[in-house]
Amino acid sequence: MALIVQKYGGTSVGSTERIQAVAEKVKKYHDAGNQVVVVVSAMSGETNRLIALAEEITPRPSAREMDVLLSTGEQVTIALLSMALHHLGVDARSYTGGQVHIRTDSAHSKARILDIDGERVKADLEAGRVVVVAGFQGTDENGNITTLGRGGSDTTAVAMAAALNADECQIFTDVDGVYTTDPRVEPKARKLDRITFEEMLELASSGSKVLQIRSVEFAGKYNVPLRVLSSFEEGEGTLITLEEEDVEKAKISGIAFSRDEAKLTIRGVPDHPGVAYQILGPIGEANIEVDMIVQNIGKDGTTDFTFTVHRNDLANALDILRRTADELGAREVEADDRIVKIALVGVGMRSHAAIASNMFKALAKEQINIQMISTSEIKVSVIVDEKYLELGVRTLHEAFGLDKIEA
Amino acid sequence: MALIVQKYGGTSVGSTERIQAVAEKVKKYHDAGNQVVVVVSAMSGETNRLIALAEEITPRPSAREMDVLLSTGEQVTIALLSMALHHLGVDARSYTGGQVHIRTDSAHSKARILDIDGERVKADLEAGRVVVVAGFQGTDENGNITTLGRGGSDTTAVAMAAALNADECQIFTDVDGVYTTDPRVEPKARKLDRITFEEMLELASSGSKVLQIRSVEFAGKYNVPLRVLSSFEEGEGTLITLEEEDVEKAKISGIAFSRDEAKLTIRGVPDHPGVAYQILGPIGEANIEVDMIVQNIGKDGTTDFTFTVHRNDLANALDILRRTADELGAREVEADDRIVKIALVGVGMRSHAAIASNMFKALAKEQINIQMISTSEIKVSVIVDEKYLELGVRTLHEAFGLDKIEA
Repeated sequence: MALIVQKYGGTSVGSTERIQAVAEKVKKYHDAGNQVVVVVSAMSGETNRLIALAEEITPRPSAREMDVLLSTGEQVTIALLSMALHHLGVDARSYTGGQVHIRTDSAHSKARILDIDGERVKADLEAGRVVVVAGFQGTDENGNITTLGRGGSDTTAVAMAAALNADECQIFTDVDGVYTTDPRVEPKARKLDRITFEEMLELASSGSKVLQIRSVEFAGKYNVPLRVLSSFEEGEGTLITLEEEDVEKAKISGIAFSRDEAKLTIRGVPDHPGVAYQILGPIGEANIEVDMIVQNIGKDGTTDFTFTVHRNDLANALDILRRTADELGAREVEADDRIVKIALVGVGMRSHAAIASNMFKALAKEQINIQMISTSEIKVSVIVDEKYLELGVRTLHEAFGLDKIEA
Repeated sequence: MALIVQKYGGTSVGSTERIQAVAEKVKKYHDAGNQVVVVVSAMSGETNRLIALAEEITPRPSAREMDVLLSTGEQVTIALLSMALHHLGVDARSYTGGQVHIRTDSAHSKARILDIDGERVKADLEAGRVVVVAGFQGTDENGNITTLGRGGSDTTAVAMAAALNADECQIFTDVDGVYTTDPRVEPKARKLDRITFEEMLELASSGSKVLQIRSVEFAGKYNVPLRVLSSFEEGEGTLITLEEEDVEKAKISGIAFSRDEAKLTIRGVPDHPGVAYQILGPIGEANIEVDMIVQNIGKDGTTDFTFTVHRNDLANALDILRRTADELGAREVEADDRIVKIALVGVGMRSHAAIASNMFKALAKEQINIQMISTSEIKVSVIVDEKYLELGVRTLHEAFGLDKIEA
C-alpha cells in the first residue's frame, strides 16, 4: 500500500464529464489499495471568468480580494470531484487550502508555502477516505486567503506529498511525460522513463514547460518522487527522482530550447570594478529578469557586456540600457531579438568535460555560429540565430544518441 | 456614530453594475460617520448555476460537499464588493463565514449559528474599514464549511449585529418595507413605519415573505433593531423593534394570508385519551408540518378532528390519515385544498378581546363563512374558502382602519 498524491490541472477537470473521468482514475488507484490525496485546479476557463468579473468592477483590484475571488475556482472543483467520487461509491472529503492548514506568507497572488499540517489529511486517509485538496491556495498567519500564483497547484501537490511523506507525487497533465526534446521540433524525440530533479529543473528553466520550476525545486528539496503522466492516456509517464547510481555513463537527458530570448549588448564601457552592477542594477530594479551574462574585457581599458532577457522585456530593457550607456560613457548599445537558446541537459555532464566540446563540434559541423555560451554543472546553453533552432536541436539530438533507448 | 450591519440579497448584487451601486450606498453610510458591516448573498443565478453543476455529477450530492460548493457563491460577491468599495476610495476587507468565526452546528445545508467572534471585525471597524462578510455560511467546530439554508444571509446579518452589539441591522430587499397587507390584493395597503418582532413573526409565519422567520426570531431574542428597506429606492423602510410603550390603543399591524394551505378532516373517531397523538403522530413522523388544529367532541362518544398542512403535503398526509382512520375505526376522511388562511396580527390584541369578535362580525357581514379559527396572543387566524381571499383581506383592512395613517 502506497500513499500517493495526485494533481489534476484545469484542462483535466475542465468539465463535469472530465471530473467524472478523473474520479474513475482516482478510484482505480484507491481500489488498488493505495491511500490517495488529490489536488485539483480550477476548471479551465473559470479563473478567466472570475478575472473578467473583477475587471468589470475596477481596473486595479486589490491582490488580497483577488485571492478571495480566485480561490473559489478550486473550491468548486474539490466539491464536484468529491461528489463524483461518492457517486462511484468512494468515500471522499474535500478541503480548501486553509482547511488543511496550508500556511503561506502574505504575498497575495504569489505566496510561498511555509508549512502544511498533514494531521487532518492523515486521519481521513486512515479512515479509508480519498482526500481532495484545493490547489493553488493557502492562508497566511492571520487567516487571510492567499494564492500561489500560476502553476501553484503543482506546488501544492508536492508540498502536500512532502508533508505526508508520500511515496509518490503524480502530476497529471496533457502530455504523457518528459521528452528528450520537443517532439514538434525533433520527431525522433523519446519519452524519458526517469530523470533527476536537477535535470528537470534545467529543462524547465530552459523552456520545457511540463512542470513549474518551483514545484520541482520543492520536490528535490524534500526528495519527493515526482511523476509526470497523462490525464487522458494510460502510461507510466516520467519519474523524477534524486540522482541515480549509474550516472557515470555520460548521461544526457534532453535538449531544451527557448524562443523567448532577446540579447542586449553594451560596447566600449570604461572598465572599473562595479561596472557589472551599474549595468544590471537598473535592469533588476525594473523587475526584468536577466538570464545569460557574458563580459569580455577589451585591450583598451573598456569592456563589452552582453546579456539576455525575455523577449517581452526587450523594449523596456533597451531604454534602461541606453540611459546607463550615456551615464557610463559607453560606445554603443545593440539589441537582437532574432536569437534562441538551446541547452543540453544531463547529470552525466559533471564528470565528462568532453560533452561541451562535442556539442560545439556538432554545431560547427552544421555551420551554426554560437553567439553566447553559458554552462552550469549539468547544462550547457548556447545562444544561436533563431533560424538555426530546429537544425540545432536535431543535430544535438542525433549527436548525443538521444533517440536510442537507454541501456 | 452608529454601528450598522447591512444585508444585501442576491438580486441587489445580481450583476457587477448592481454591486457597484451597493458600494455607493455603503459609501454613503460610511461617509456619514457610521461603522458599517455588509453581509451579502451570492449573485442571483449563481447558486442555481452551481446546483446545476452538482446535478451533472450526481443526482444526490452529499450535503457536506454541497456546502463547500455553494459557499463559493457568497465568496465571489464579498471579493467583488470589496473591490468596488476600494474603487470608490473606501477601505474595505472581505471575510468568509469561517474567517470571522461564524460557528455553526454540523447540520449541513441548514446549520444554525452557535457563536460569532466579533473581535476581528471590530478591529477592522476601529481602523476605519468597511467589513464585508459572506452571508449564509459558517464553519462547524471541526472547520467544515456549513450553510444556513435559504434566506440564511438575513440570519448572518442579524447574528453579526447581535455579536457586535450593533445599533441597527438593515435588510435591503426588493420591497421598501413591511405593509399592512399585500398591496397586490388590497391597493390601499400602507407601509408601516414600525412594527414589533412578535408581529413581524406572526406576519411572516402567515405568509408575508419579506423576512426569514429565523432572522426575526434571532433579532427579537438579542433585541437587535431590524430595518427592512429597499435596495433600489430611497426611504426609511420599516423598523422592527421590541414592543412600544403605547400599545394600549388596540393596535392592529397588518393582515397576512396564505394560499398554501390544505385542510384534512377525520370524522367519527372513537374518542379516548391519546387520540390526538394517534392521529398527528404519523403525520409528524413523515416530516409534515401541521399548522392549525381543531377538535370537536361529538355526543356519540366520537370526535371530529381537523387540521391544516402545506398544500404540497396534502397527498402524502391524506394517505397517512386514511391508514390511521382504518386503524382507529373512524367513520370518514375528507380533504380540501380550496381554502386559504387569513390572519389579523397586532400586539394590541392582547388587551382587547373585542378584536376577534369584530373580525368575525366584519367577515359575517360579507357572508364569508369561517371554517376554522385559531388564536394566539397577537394573532387571530381564520380558514375560509379560497374564493373569499381578496374580499376577506380588503374587508378586514377597511374594518380595522389599516389604510389610515397611525396617530
